[in-house]
Amino acid sequence: MQITAAQLCQLLNGKIVGNPEIKVSGPGKIEDAKQGEITFLANPKYEAFAYTTNASVILVKRDFEPKQPIKATLIQVDDVYASIALLLEKFGGGIKSQQGISSQAIVDQTASLGKEISLGHFVVIEENAEIGDNAIIFPQVFVGKNAKIGKNTILYPGVKIQHNCIVGDNCILHSNVVVGSDGFGFVPQEDNSYKKIAQTGNVVIEDNVEIGANSSIDRATMGSTIIRKGAKLDNLIMIAHNVEIGENTVVAAQAGIAGSSKIGKQCMIGGQAGFVGHIKIADGTKVQAQSGINKTINEENTAWYGSPALPYNDYLRSYAAFRKLPELMKKMRELEKRLNDQ
Amino acid sequence: MQITAAQLCQLLNGKIVGNPEIKVSGPGKIEDAKQGEITFLANPKYEAFAYTTNASVILVKRDFEPKQPIKATLIQVDDVYASIALLLEKFGGGIKSQQGISSQAIVDQTASLGKEISLGHFVVIEENAEIGDNAIIFPQVFVGKNAKIGKNTILYPGVKIQHNCIVGDNCILHSNVVVGSDGFGFVPQEDNSYKKIAQTGNVVIEDNVEIGANSSIDRATMGSTIIRKGAKLDNLIMIAHNVEIGENTVVAAQAGIAGSSKIGKQCMIGGQAGFVGHIKIADGTKVQAQSGINKTINEENTAWYGSPALPYNDYLRSYAAFRKLPELMKKMRELEKRLNDQ
Amino acid sequence: MQITAAQLCQLLNGKIVGNPEIKVSGPGKIEDAKQGEITFLANPKYEAFAYTTNASVILVKRDFEPKQPIKATLIQVDDVYASIALLLEKFGGGIKSQQGISSQAIVDQTASLGKEISLGHFVVIEENAEIGDNAIIFPQVFVGKNAKIGKNTILYPGVKIQHNCIVGDNCILHSNVVVGSDGFGFVPQEDNSYKKIAQTGNVVIEDNVEIGANSSIDRATMGSTIIRKGAKLDNLIMIAHNVEIGENTVVAAQAGIAGSSKIGKQCMIGGQAGFVGHIKIADGTKVQAQSGINKTINEENTAWYGSPALPYNDYLRSYAAFRKLPELMKKMRELEKRLNDQ
Repeated sequence: MQITAAQLCQLLNGKIVGNPEIKVSGPGKIEDAKQGEITFLANPKYEAFAYTTNASVILVKRDFEPKQPIKATLIQVDDVYASIALLLEKFGGGIKSQQGISSQAIVDQTASLGKEISLGHFVVIEENAEIGDNAIIFPQVFVGKNAKIGKNTILYPGVKIQHNCIVGDNCILHSNVVVGSDGFGFVPQEDNSYKKIAQTGNVVIEDNVEIGANSSIDRATMGSTIIRKGAKLDNLIMIAHNVEIGENTVVAAQAGIAGSSKIGKQCMIGGQAGFVGHIKIADGTKVQAQSGINKTINEENTAWYGSPALPYNDYLRSYAAFRKLPELMKKMRELEKRLNDQ
Repeated sequence: MQITAAQLCQLLNGKIVGNPEIKVSGPGKIEDAKQGEITFLANPKYEAFAYTTNASVILVKRDFEPKQPIKATLIQVDDVYASIALLLEKFGGGIKSQQGISSQAIVDQTASLGKEISLGHFVVIEENAEIGDNAIIFPQVFVGKNAKIGKNTILYPGVKIQHNCIVGDNCILHSNVVVGSDGFGFVPQEDNSYKKIAQTGNVVIEDNVEIGANSSIDRATMGSTIIRKGAKLDNLIMIAHNVEIGENTVVAAQAGIAGSSKIGKQCMIGGQAGFVGHIKIADGTKVQAQSGINKTINEENTAWYGSPALPYNDYLRSYAAFRKLPELMKKMRELEKRLNDQ
Repeated sequence: MQITAAQLCQLLNGKIVGNPEIKVSGPGKIEDAKQGEITFLANPKYEAFAYTTNASVILVKRDFEPKQPIKATLIQVDDVYASIALLLEKFGGGIKSQQGISSQAIVDQTASLGKEISLGHFVVIEENAEIGDNAIIFPQVFVGKNAKIGKNTILYPGVKIQHNCIVGDNCILHSNVVVGSDGFGFVPQEDNSYKKIAQTGNVVIEDNVEIGANSSIDRATMGSTIIRKGAKLDNLIMIAHNVEIGENTVVAAQAGIAGSSKIGKQCMIGGQAGFVGHIKIADGTKVQAQSGINKTINEENTAWYGSPALPYNDYLRSYAAFRKLPELMKKMRELEKRLNDQ
């Protein structure tokens, strides 16, 4: 597909600076885009590349003013990231698995399959499971008894959805995600061994949720572990039994939430952050990467950092002082000496 | 199944306060249990819900004294968690995969299969592997050459047990667990590349071990990586080559143990904690979540916190002071000024 | 296989101290090797075992001088680890999956298969995918459309290589590794929801790379996420979209690299370390386990520790002072009192 800068400009509601007739055939990163590609400049860190890139067209902010000459044609837009999203959708094109139902998928006769679904090779759909219309189930996926998969949902190769779990509409679960593994619950016995507590609940994933590769969402002991609509979870995340993740909350890779904790709406959780169990996190909370949250946060829209976490700015101030601690120690000894010498 | 409070009370060896004839049909969480359900109160944080829950019956501690009127019938027991465990077993009921051996499982003719086993669709059992009586092997599991799976053991969908590895009786391995991937060992070469050290050992998992979803246990370079009986490992845990995890030790999600370290019996390892290689951890050690253990711990039953970890209370004291560091810095400058002004 | 100490000595270019005619049949760890086994002493921590081991032969450094009598025959070598690597290769022997192409693998007719490859049961190879000569594809692997797998590369059970991704020659990907899951990119919308940014790039893994079990490498938004030749990644690692890992860089388990960061050559990244996005790390950088790197590192061959990370020795000094903080606080109060009392 070839498209002119003028056509793209119209699509993105932007303004052209340069040659409107130049054609592009796909997107590229500003550092290594080739002639005939379109790229973008959103993060000022990358500005230097704008003057050297081989891309034919660059998306820039409405107010971008080059400090040096630029070969490429510019398209100025209000929101660079939103424009890229549109653009990539146009160029990107989803790669679908084979259409239709593989003869090598095993579907229990009591399962119910929606219209226009794809079922890949070596998929297993167990008793009474339901697959919604237009769902795409890639090869080697497992959908257990009574599980429900919503409309338009995509399960990538190797996803395992276990019995009784529910996945909403328009969800995307990446490869090897596990939904519905047992919660981690044991009763200590007198001989120091542990007795397993049966995990009788399920997992409910609402609509428009995305979950990254190799993440695992444990089923509830009783009731449901819940991922609310629009939440986005990255790779290798651990969601324990009876946790609830609020609407439109974003969780970065390798974060972990311990049992029964409730994370509010529109929170932003950094990578490798951890939460203890049985706490409640207010809406709009921001947690810095690698932080450890060990108590309930009641106030909305606060930011946290450290392990255990402190208010974001407090941590930065304490950490700045921590860097100077050896110097502080030295000064203390001097003061002491001066006092002793008086 | 409907069961009266009186019947449950007898089962749990408890004492009834309220209506012994009230019937329940399943368990629910205290926050959202419905009429006709039984719930429990173990963690005092949840006490407020006891006065508002719709549950018909609540399990409470023997010495629980309500501070407000309670609608529900109470069953007082010695150990609430143990009673729940019993109860959930009664109500829960395991969901088994299809009984019997799928015609779509591939079993090498030299493999040996125990009695009454289940083998799911698209399972692969390689040469000389052994599957114990009553084992349940869910779909899409791989059991490599010479591997042994014990009696009553459950391997959930997508588990991979590689060649020569041994899993004991009554174990539960959750979806996508990997047992027997190569240990991470390389010899640096003169040209800055690395030469792989062949990993010729195996993994031995003893009886009654549970391992959470997406965890990985590497095989030993020589000898065995060992998970001792009764150990419980949560999701996304990394166990490196030649590690040994002691009897009845519990490891929370996303923790990692580097090569050749030996963790004692009855330890409790918090989530996202890390251990360097080649150290030894005494029995009964407790490690707080996100801590980093970088040396051998010889004394039993100690608790640790921080990265690198300090004795638990020392860390708390130092961290309390860390919070006040900016204030301390300020005070220091004042003292210095006062001395200078003298 | 039985081999004499003299024969081994010749193979390893070493020097014998003891009985050259003694025979060994396999390797064992120094703590628990049995008679007839060969073991090694490289880490001085294990020296005590040299005097008690039942092994028949011990590999030791050229300059090792026993402090007590040793029963075993010694072979003195220049580089113990290199000698072990050679030795394990000799004894170890790879365990291959079934030879040839399983009748239960599904290969699209447009895919291209090299010579002498192994394709395990329930493998899926999609349209236009290419598998290089001598590649070993274990059961339950998925290779998506247009993906390329190099010569001699091994994909262990459950690996998922998604569309358009490229894996070089002589690579080893352990079980349940995911290559080519979508990068984590969203545009915030006015209603607080997020719109997915299509991820149209791919992953390129160069030659001689090893990736540990359950790790995930996301595809680039545009362009490629790149793992350069000779890099070694351990288990449960997260590599985000558009990241680049340099040649011969080693990354320990559970580390995570956020989007678009570039890690240089010959770096050593500790376990559970984290890197924010959009930074550049110089060649030869060393990062201590659990550290958090939050800015570009320009100088080569530096070492870092802490979260956020400081120069290695600075962190150790500050942390040593952190341990003494409660004492420092007390001393401060004393000084203040003395000043007040003057």
